[in-house]
Amino acid sequence: MATSAAARFLAALAGAAVLLVLLGGAAGAVVGHDDDAAAARRTMEEFAGFPASDYRGDGGGGSGGSSPFYVDSDGLQRQIDELASFSDSPVPSVTRVLYSDKDVQARRYIKGIMNQLGLSIREDAVGNIFGRWEGSEAGLGAVATGSHVDAIPFSGKYDGVVGVLGALEAIRMLKRSGFQPKRSLEVIMFTSEEPTRFGISCLGSRLMAGSEELARSLKETVDNQNVSFFDAADSAGYKMHPEELHNVFLKKDDYFAFVELHIEQGPILEKEGIKIGVVTAIAAPASIKVEFEGNGGHAGAVLMPARNDAGLAAAELALAVEKHVLESGSIDTVGTVGILQLHPGAINSIPSKSHVEIDVRDIDEKRRNNVIEKVHQSAIEISKNRGVLLSEFKIINQDPPALSDKSVISAMEFAAKQLNLEYKLMISRAYHDSLFMARISPMGMIFIPCYKGYSHKPEEYASPEDMANGVKVLALAMARLSLQ
Amino acid sequence: MATSAAARFLAALAGAAVLLVLLGGAAGAVVGHDDDAAAARRTMEEFAGFPASDYRGDGGGGSGGSSPFYVDSDGLQRQIDELASFSDSPVPSVTRVLYSDKDVQARRYIKGIMNQLGLSIREDAVGNIFGRWEGSEAGLGAVATGSHVDAIPFSGKYDGVVGVLGALEAIRMLKRSGFQPKRSLEVIMFTSEEPTRFGISCLGSRLMAGSEELARSLKETVDNQNVSFFDAADSAGYKMHPEELHNVFLKKDDYFAFVELHIEQGPILEKEGIKIGVVTAIAAPASIKVEFEGNGGHAGAVLMPARNDAGLAAAELALAVEKHVLESGSIDTVGTVGILQLHPGAINSIPSKSHVEIDVRDIDEKRRNNVIEKVHQSAIEISKNRGVLLSEFKIINQDPPALSDKSVISAMEFAAKQLNLEYKLMISRAYHDSLFMARISPMGMIFIPCYKGYSHKPEEYASPEDMANGVKVLALAMARLSLQ
Repeated sequence: MATSAAARFLAALAGAAVLLVLLGGAAGAVVGHDDDAAAARRTMEEFAGFPASDYRGDGGGGSGGSSPFYVDSDGLQRQIDELASFSDSPVPSVTRVLYSDKDVQARRYIKGIMNQLGLSIREDAVGNIFGRWEGSEAGLGAVATGSHVDAIPFSGKYDGVVGVLGALEAIRMLKRSGFQPKRSLEVIMFTSEEPTRFGISCLGSRLMAGSEELARSLKETVDNQNVSFFDAADSAGYKMHPEELHNVFLKKDDYFAFVELHIEQGPILEKEGIKIGVVTAIAAPASIKVEFEGNGGHAGAVLMPARNDAGLAAAELALAVEKHVLESGSIDTVGTVGILQLHPGAINSIPSKSHVEIDVRDIDEKRRNNVIEKVHQSAIEISKNRGVLLSEFKIINQDPPALSDKSVISAMEFAAKQLNLEYKLMISRAYHDSLFMARISPMGMIFIPCYKGYSHKPEEYASPEDMANGVKVLALAMARLSLQ
Repeated sequence: MATSAAARFLAALAGAAVLLVLLGGAAGAVVGHDDDAAAARRTMEEFAGFPASDYRGDGGGGSGGSSPFYVDSDGLQRQIDELASFSDSPVPSVTRVLYSDKDVQARRYIKGIMNQLGLSIREDAVGNIFGRWEGSEAGLGAVATGSHVDAIPFSGKYDGVVGVLGALEAIRMLKRSGFQPKRSLEVIMFTSEEPTRFGISCLGSRLMAGSEELARSLKETVDNQNVSFFDAADSAGYKMHPEELHNVFLKKDDYFAFVELHIEQGPILEKEGIKIGVVTAIAAPASIKVEFEGNGGHAGAVLMPARNDAGLAAAELALAVEKHVLESGSIDTVGTVGILQLHPGAINSIPSKSHVEIDVRDIDEKRRNNVIEKVHQSAIEISKNRGVLLSEFKIINQDPPALSDKSVISAMEFAAKQLNLEYKLMISRAYHDSLFMARISPMGMIFIPCYKGYSHKPEEYASPEDMANGVKVLALAMARLSLQ
């Protein structure tokens, strides 16, 4: 049995410089005999015309050079810059909101690259886009990768994008190196990860993971211009009947593994000079919408004792969120008031309404829920003390944390070792589509450093070298998983 | 000399039911002899065909009836409702911002009524509109009245409007009653009183009062869509060269008196069941713009110790404003944060910028300035503690309070007494155009009750009866001042 497997294996990897790297581990694992591995290496050297050692990983993110196993860093950077041009805010910032014209242009751009790579393209009802490289055993669960290209207002051009364009570059590398996947490889562009338009994070992956609750709530969901979700989707070319949302649901074994490449969005890798983060868990995110209503009135005429100021209630609550988070007893607890809006929003008018949106996360779900409960109590107390109505305290999402799968972690560790890249096991405090893919597939994430940990702002930056390292680790990890 | 004055006086007031009322005071004052007053009353009774006592003021806001000295309450209400239809927000709210299309339509509507009344109309460079009823001695300083029709977002339909449409109804009453002014009577529609578009309150009256500082700063003033003041004015038909702003300035003796009718915008008159407020002083308003800048960043990835959150700095400052105001030692001190905006304004993004606009008032200028200084110290302290930059602490305006003039107060008191309407001397905590007219003319204000003191919101309401009372007091006060 071992001999025919080796033959198939060698055929799959004929000309695949990747084999040499993989032979350092997977090939041996597949054929089970070291001497066969040596034989396979000699074959490849004759076939490839260069010594095996060249593929120990040049570590230098070499963007060209003789071996086909290189990252076209210039090409990748050009694509990132071109994609960044589809934005509703001026350079260097990027604003690309779900189903906006710029989002539609970005989707067309991504599908163009998938076409060039010869991937078979599929789009589901809400606009998740799938580019598949059929494997030799296409019936098996595929190995998927991917991320998102929507961007919150005034953000940067790397968040999510590195995991889509970088994944397509990883496929290009594997194709260029002659690699032939056993399990199909699929790159997913999730329809939207940012909550900007409808207040729902990871809308695409949440549906793929089978969220009945989201399939229900989307029927009444409108954005802040009162445009319904379905009208917005229709405007972007995704006309659907509400019942079609269930077609977006995936089955548990659709994927053998899902691995996402992403910038760290934090300062640790850069600070510690480490090139790769192997993510072991994703923190549990939660978001809350709160609204207060008071009497409002004229800023001059209404004396202080007669006031019930919805704006001051919101200010108090923002500081209460900070207090409860700092008192959680763990540095892993974070809380943010990213949105605070006053109505009518005139300098000489006491705010009659305030709208607050709160983001609370922790790697410990119970601790995170405890903070949410305290924030709720504070909101009730503040409304009583200030004589304002707590007209809404709505938990938009309260997701559990997600653990990366051991098999995917080992594939990522293997790839980093093979490429001689120092790596660090770490937690992702930011949520990602991986958080929901973990519900239907073994999941893992690869982090690369980003400048000062900046993200969600124009200064967000990842170097070509760091991106090249991430792409190579992703390519090898996917290749390895594909052959399992 | 006394006889010819009486003749002129009787001629001016021939058929003027108003004379009867005025004779109770002004006529006697003008001719100097009580028996002449009695003679004039008999003449009027023969001329008017009804007993003098009818004009003691029916108190009931009679909106019709045999005497020409009535308020057409239905007509006035219809005009108020028609004017309210020029709005950029749905009924019952009104949004009518300076130089917007709706503002232009409202201006046309007001000029239409001025035309119907036969007033001679003038508009200055920035769109203050003047409707003049020429007096018999037009060379004398005129008696002016008026207010504004611009409206902050989502406000009501009475603020300012009662002082323009009500003033035009007062003119109509006097004309209907055969009154003939000695000093001309002029109704002014001030181009904008609300600071909504350019952050400048009482823009029209401030310029009329000769503000060199405003004439300078308008050259660099833009709105939050980056439209310059001059482009905005041009779009509304007021094309001007910056130097023409000085043509808006009025001279100290242009007006003999200015008296403004306005809803109280506070709860006192309604609570005490009093029909008329005679304003003795207007509180000193000040507005401040504050901006903080921090590092922003990803709401999940940046741990709490590494944050400098511009949004929390703004929240702290809002509560500091309240604290300093409450600690001023006087109930007359009021402070409001009407605008608090976070950037980029995404739930999962730590605010990197915050913009706060603060409104502080008091009838005691020193006490008000003391609060402003403390707010400034708090802003500095907060920025240090939170490691954010205090990128702006700009005092937009810091105006002194204004005292009403004794002669105008007595004319208003006289009118209220003649009409048998209980009145109360009171302070206006809200600023009005009168605050600036006081710099170039003896000034006074007439308040009428409004429902629960509500203002600057759709629920703002003044009853037809209360408006009729206000119009009558205004008419009599203007008539009396016009004959001085």
